Amino acid sequence: MVGTPINPRYARTIAPPVMEARRWIDGVSFPEDRPLINLSQAAPVSPPPEPLREAMAEALLNRPESHLYGPVLGLPELRAELAGQWSTAYGGTIRPDQVAVTAGCNQAFTATLSTIAGAGDAVILPTPWYFNHKMWLDMEGVEARLLATGDDLIPDPEAAAALVCARTRAIILVSPNNPGGVEYPAPVLRAFRDLAKRHGLALILDETYRDFHSQTGAPHDLFADPDWDETLIHLYSFSKAYRLTGHRVGAVMASPARLVEVEKFLDTVAICPPQIGQIGALWGMRNLGGWLAGERMEILRRRDALIAGFQRLPGWQLMGCGAYFAYARHPFDLPSDAVAQALVGKAGILVLPGTMFGPTRAEGGDGQAEASLRIAFANADAEGLAQVVDRLAGVTL
Amino acid sequence: MVGTPINPRYARTIAPPVMEARRWIDGVSFPEDRPLINLSQAAPVSPPPEPLREAMAEALLNRPESHLYGPVLGLPELRAELAGQWSTAYGGTIRPDQVAVTAGCNQAFTATLSTIAGAGDAVILPTPWYFNHKMWLDMEGVEARLLATGDDLIPDPEAAAALVCARTRAIILVSPNNPGGVEYPAPVLRAFRDLAKRHGLALILDETYRDFHSQTGAPHDLFADPDWDETLIHLYSFSKAYRLTGHRVGAVMASPARLVEVEKFLDTVAICPPQIGQIGALWGMRNLGGWLAGERMEILRRRDALIAGFQRLPGWQLMGCGAYFAYARHPFDLPSDAVAQALVGKAGILVLPGTMFGPTRAEGGDGQAEASLRIAFANADAEGLAQVVDRLAGVTL
Repeated sequence: MVGTPINPRYARTIAPPVMEARRWIDGVSFPEDRPLINLSQAAPVSPPPEPLREAMAEALLNRPESHLYGPVLGLPELRAELAGQWSTAYGGTIRPDQVAVTAGCNQAFTATLSTIAGAGDAVILPTPWYFNHKMWLDMEGVEARLLATGDDLIPDPEAAAALVCARTRAIILVSPNNPGGVEYPAPVLRAFRDLAKRHGLALILDETYRDFHSQTGAPHDLFADPDWDETLIHLYSFSKAYRLTGHRVGAVMASPARLVEVEKFLDTVAICPPQIGQIGALWGMRNLGGWLAGERMEILRRRDALIAGFQRLPGWQLMGCGAYFAYARHPFDLPSDAVAQALVGKAGILVLPGTMFGPTRAEGGDGQAEASLRIAFANADAEGLAQVVDRLAGVTL
Repeated sequence: MVGTPINPRYARTIAPPVMEARRWIDGVSFPEDRPLINLSQAAPVSPPPEPLREAMAEALLNRPESHLYGPVLGLPELRAELAGQWSTAYGGTIRPDQVAVTAGCNQAFTATLSTIAGAGDAVILPTPWYFNHKMWLDMEGVEARLLATGDDLIPDPEAAAALVCARTRAIILVSPNNPGGVEYPAPVLRAFRDLAKRHGLALILDETYRDFHSQTGAPHDLFADPDWDETLIHLYSFSKAYRLTGHRVGAVMASPARLVEVEKFLDTVAICPPQIGQIGALWGMRNLGGWLAGERMEILRRRDALIAGFQRLPGWQLMGCGAYFAYARHPFDLPSDAVAQALVGKAGILVLPGTMFGPTRAEGGDGQAEASLRIAFANADAEGLAQVVDRLAGVTL
């Protein structure tokens, strides 16, 4: 029991979905010839390339500052490197004082959102949502005005306009999308930027999966506006690009005035981003461009394999497939949380149900949450994905 | 300019004091024979001992999991090690499921407080406060009901009782105290625990500096109560003990039900504590007990040197001196923020003013904030501290 007060907003917030799903496989034994295929989380399962590991180890041994506090907003060299590479990639001007480093992209989001909206405010959030975004809004008492998407999972700026109210402070987008796997087209992003600008809202664009976008070149032209920082806030993660998940490094790009406020959150919650993660991220940015391009090609091959596989899977419908995720309609007459739990035993597959990414019918949803599953496919190779398709084909519920 | 909304609670919250003080020395040049003595921050300036650095480097090279996500609440081995060593040190029973690892002690505090109190709630906070605690309360809209202390800096449980109202959710204590340097006596802590229990409040006890307590043995007997976790929440930091500041590792000990809520915050803000920091902390706990005991003795020697020095310093009064900090009344007819800024030029010394740790008269304070300075002395050796005293003796303002 807890003898002391629980913040009621916390009591009402869901438990971390990935930990919840982990409990579904606790104690389950899988036959040796059909081991569990875990497609619940988009996280690298291998360490970074050896030269990066060596560079980090060398820093721990010989660079005292790798063990000491650094600046709250991150290492100046890393902020400058991000500013430079992003300016080139997006065809715009991003200055180092518009960049802050955070302990992962979740922290970039929570720090930024907190400086914009507090209890009683509202934001616009497309469904399916990224669950940690939704959890933070719930814990902080910020109302998420949900923007439903159709079967293409692309949010509609005009529908969003209808959700703006006097308490609205921001629009939150993730592209390439987690959990949907879809890439928001540049004109859609531009329309959301215009909507945000018109109403004085912040547009938070989480591009954690940008390195695995299926298109080459800039995925949008928002940074080409010299006044981009009056509306846009861009979020990034180093976790996937260089396999640095356990080191916690992300970034936020915004106006210097915004970063003054972000610094208050980061000082209080984090003091500084982990130094060795920053050293690794900087080394990766300077040395692993070619390697990362190869990683992207491999992810795109897996994506193609999954798309091809689902074409021969009766009753299933891929709604989105890109970067690390596919989002699929299942053919069963059961809600997705029951389907996901049944797939553990029936197929030896762990995926997360749509009910973790959107409102259920009981919560006012339109049924998309019950109908869909998220498949985090990036860690399965082409052979593994063929197996996934074969196993799903044989399932009856 | 910011074109987008700023959460007014952020706009009203002070900027990080350590960064603010750093600006006071920007561009100031100090004579070669009298370099700056920076006593503004309690942070190690040397890296961890070489064997610890080697253990961490070895993990980066050869243990893939050191780069990957770990459990939200931390490595099971580290939670178990903390539970075991703490049970012995405090003469109580602390189980591994009552321990969570965080990315530093600031995160332990913000995660815990958020699960207890939200906007509109209140907590009791002694002054002088630890500024990041006060900043978080301000940013979250939690009212800090301030508990003034006299010249001994020890908060009075009876005075605290008079501050409890229907919205009060917790009492926040730091011992050994930052910024005050005082060690709260065990009976005082027991009285606060009883007060908290009587009113159904959480008692948050931040023991970041416990490894440098001047007394050997348990500093209090709160853990000896088998039901300690119905009231007490203990916070800890690995930053000082093993010089791991840049790696961000701390801990919280509380009831398992509390940690279910804490896990929601940590998942959303951090995902997991940095893995290499946890590996380092565990290695330190298992191998550096003797080394840490020596570090403690050195800090205690510096403390004695500072106390002796201040006895020959006319007009100054040490209010508290212990662990990493001394808190002193200055003899000048100026508010402490003016004194602190003047000492940069006049004495080549950087300390933080009491106005960063308590309410000014304009904010309803009793004058303690204007009268006092925090001296983070742990990084100055006995010779350096003698110089500090000599320089202060010569200052006229």
